[in-house]
Amino acid sequence: MHNKFEEKTLKTEQIFQGKVVHLQVDDVLLPNGEVSKREVIKHPGAVAVIAITPEKKIVLVEQYRKPLEKSILEIPAGKLELGEQPEVTAIRELEEETGYTTEKLEFVTSFYTSPGFADELLYVYFTDQLSPVKEEKKLDDDEFVELFELTLEEAEKFVLEEKIHDVKTVYALLFLKDKLSWNNRP
Amino acid sequence: MHNKFEEKTLKTEQIFQGKVVHLQVDDVLLPNGEVSKREVIKHPGAVAVIAITPEKKIVLVEQYRKPLEKSILEIPAGKLELGEQPEVTAIRELEEETGYTTEKLEFVTSFYTSPGFADELLYVYFTDQLSPVKEEKKLDDDEFVELFELTLEEAEKFVLEEKIHDVKTVYALLFLKDKLSWNNRP
Repeated sequence: MHNKFEEKTLKTEQIFQGKVVHLQVDDVLLPNGEVSKREVIKHPGAVAVIAITPEKKIVLVEQYRKPLEKSILEIPAGKLELGEQPEVTAIRELEEETGYTTEKLEFVTSFYTSPGFADELLYVYFTDQLSPVKEEKKLDDDEFVELFELTLEEAEKFVLEEKIHDVKTVYALLFLKDKLSWNNRP
Repeated sequence: MHNKFEEKTLKTEQIFQGKVVHLQVDDVLLPNGEVSKREVIKHPGAVAVIAITPEKKIVLVEQYRKPLEKSILEIPAGKLELGEQPEVTAIRELEEETGYTTEKLEFVTSFYTSPGFADELLYVYFTDQLSPVKEEKKLDDDEFVELFELTLEEAEKFVLEEKIHDVKTVYALLFLKDKLSWNNRP
């Protein structure tokens, strides 16, 4: 059942090539023989890190998100550079955004964030082995973040207030709740 | 701390207005006084439904996703029509894609799927009160889906095979695992 309902590309129109996203419109052949259009956002992919301090707090960064016109608290994350291994991106973003580093990063899962219109694939990692970076790393020129370290309960309150409001962070909290519930089993 | 690091819009350039997404590029004033550009995808928002059959199976639909160039299994979902309440969209999409309906829909959470470049907000609902629709509903002309009903264990196998590979469905499985683990507590 690998590619059921496959839609073959008849033509691709390049609309926009930006710093972050590319946009194209594909003419596709549908399974019923009709022709339709698909709007496709191309994205380099990204990583996110569920990072726990020795005090069992989750590491979050506050950041203004222009598409949302508000600032939210998210787990550390960032885009893949061209050809970069996701583990390398994960360490780099963790160091730049939080001042922590780690030598033990576990792969959790990967998922597409918006499969209906974008090819962004997000790789999620976990670490509870944090240490301060020796030398402070520089953020991108247009990046401004503030560090927070919260208990799971504090973070869950921010979900209700929609201050935590993006899927990777909501997923991270559920992941930690599940992990703790298993850890605490008799 | 509501809008820390706010980026005021100096100018908006409309690039593309499609069926599903709009794309604009904003010139923004950064907190440090510099000017930068933000690529912003506008999306109408969407709903997804975590639906459980009386046999405790999760309802999934297989669908070809052009941006991924593969078909994956997802929980039923769809875009909001203009001005539509998310609950109404949720019932409509459930009926069209699965042939089930429900009179009891619980709100689970909402989250932004890709806050770095898109304003897509996804509303997630849960129901374990399914009944067959009386009259079969028509899918959109360019929509082709096949229904699956899987146990949690079967679904988790599909995650490892990357046949389930999108964030709302991965989130749904973790949500159900958490729910069952709490339900099964002494």
